[in-house]
Amino acid sequence: MALAVAQLGPVHLRDSRESVVKRLLQMMREAKGRGARLVVFPELALTTFFPRYWMDEQEAQARFFETAMPNPVVQPLFDEARRLEIGFHLGYAELTRDGRPFNTAILVDPSGTIVGKYRKIHLPGHAERKEGVPFQHLEKKYFQVGDRGFGVWDTMGARLGMCICNDRRWPETYRVMALQGAELVVLGYNTPSYNINWDEPTHLRTTTHLLALQGNAHMNGMWVAAAAKCGSEDGFHMFGSSVIVAPTGEIVARTLSEDDEVITANADLRLGELYRQNIFNFGKHRRPEHYGLILERTGAGEPLPQPPID
Amino acid sequence: MALAVAQLGPVHLRDSRESVVKRLLQMMREAKGRGARLVVFPELALTTFFPRYWMDEQEAQARFFETAMPNPVVQPLFDEARRLEIGFHLGYAELTRDGRPFNTAILVDPSGTIVGKYRKIHLPGHAERKEGVPFQHLEKKYFQVGDRGFGVWDTMGARLGMCICNDRRWPETYRVMALQGAELVVLGYNTPSYNINWDEPTHLRTTTHLLALQGNAHMNGMWVAAAAKCGSEDGFHMFGSSVIVAPTGEIVARTLSEDDEVITANADLRLGELYRQNIFNFGKHRRPEHYGLILERTGAGEPLPQPPID
Repeated sequence: MALAVAQLGPVHLRDSRESVVKRLLQMMREAKGRGARLVVFPELALTTFFPRYWMDEQEAQARFFETAMPNPVVQPLFDEARRLEIGFHLGYAELTRDGRPFNTAILVDPSGTIVGKYRKIHLPGHAERKEGVPFQHLEKKYFQVGDRGFGVWDTMGARLGMCICNDRRWPETYRVMALQGAELVVLGYNTPSYNINWDEPTHLRTTTHLLALQGNAHMNGMWVAAAAKCGSEDGFHMFGSSVIVAPTGEIVARTLSEDDEVITANADLRLGELYRQNIFNFGKHRRPEHYGLILERTGAGEPLPQPPID
Repeated sequence: MALAVAQLGPVHLRDSRESVVKRLLQMMREAKGRGARLVVFPELALTTFFPRYWMDEQEAQARFFETAMPNPVVQPLFDEARRLEIGFHLGYAELTRDGRPFNTAILVDPSGTIVGKYRKIHLPGHAERKEGVPFQHLEKKYFQVGDRGFGVWDTMGARLGMCICNDRRWPETYRVMALQGAELVVLGYNTPSYNINWDEPTHLRTTTHLLALQGNAHMNGMWVAAAAKCGSEDGFHMFGSSVIVAPTGEIVARTLSEDDEVITANADLRLGELYRQNIFNFGKHRRPEHYGLILERTGAGEPLPQPPID
């Protein structure tokens, strides 16, 4: 399956959605020109990464959320997808008709139809105002936890799953999709280059990002395609390192810039099958009877009592 | 916490357990000399990796299993641990008093007392004889699935968990221990350098091994110490690449040889705490209500029905 990841450089506060859609259209055409059947755009692709700013919810919703999808501003993406016969994945802030805010991604097929929707489950950051830091990370304030689970869809010749940003760091995310037969997981992210919680050495910001993608792609015998929004948005820097990862855990394509950039790979879905039928044959080797704590506990607790040593 | 991994080179069929214990003793002394408080020996450390050979269960048990622990042959390890005041981790084939065979590891504290026992849960390989391959991988024939769960123990100043070999490739292994507060997971392994199931490119044998250890160490904010038995046992090669991995996912010590070799690291347990209190604060961020399939399904199945796209 020919696949493209379209990384997006900075989107500043002053940038209109129309200007962003133009950049996305240009990358969509490049992706198609390089043979891709699906192009993966980032999380919250249409605006700046607004959870870094403190404001009230109403203001955030008025400025940064979409109340319909498609809508007139993004319609050209749907039209161009149908014209070019290419699918796409797009992340945006969604306000539902009944007023619930989500960090959402959609999967659109080459006929321009929305075939899948995912609402982010692992919201990072905090809901209260954090003092003494250069920026906020208010996803827990502006979004509700996703209510649609981790879905998987048969479309464009593959079994595809979606997750968003921080979801990629949680092994449960990929496992729940692998247990539905996912061959490919696509995702977008906006990740600050500076950790506001502790003095994390800079190199770890990207190595841990890659490690999560590579480790989980491998342990689930799946392809993973991850698209960053990155660069310095009004002075707040986010890293790039968008990648396409094979089921071997190897990075087969990666961005070099922190600006608009398209990467592609020909994802051989049979490669994942080799892992899923052998070393990671779940039916033969998994032991759910010993995994109970994964559901029983949310946070970490005390060690379980152990049988006597005989 | 000062930690040593003692990798063991080949143990051939003709090698006596006494000769192996002498090698382990020598590495235990080296580990102590380098300041270690705990030394991690490999899986099935006392004999050759016998699951590569076809034989009947009675023969395997008579030749390769221990019916008591400690026993006269390994007693010098317990005595030396007490004398040096160093703990150790040892893997061996266990035959219980009621005749059940397990692939087992024990944790022995610096007083020479067995404080923890683990029986391998994720048994790889097959139970039937495989034709047309250079060697077998009969763990499912010679061992029962472990019956003690993934335990965690407070000992030697740390909260410690154990797993064995193929367990390291399953994210559930580490998660169940992390949910009991594990700060360090120790394990041994015997991994053939050749994949009998499909023509896997050689470099992947070690990169996927490291990726599983690094990815899971990081995603659980824990240290991982992994000890190989390796080199060519009677012509059957197993890889080395024993490592100590930090909660950052970084390899802080690794072996270079495929022979007896000790590596050490000073494992700062507070480093894991930084991850577990921030990005991987389970209590704040995990969403078990969306993880149901991890327990409900063993093998992969069809996609779950999705709500309509609204």
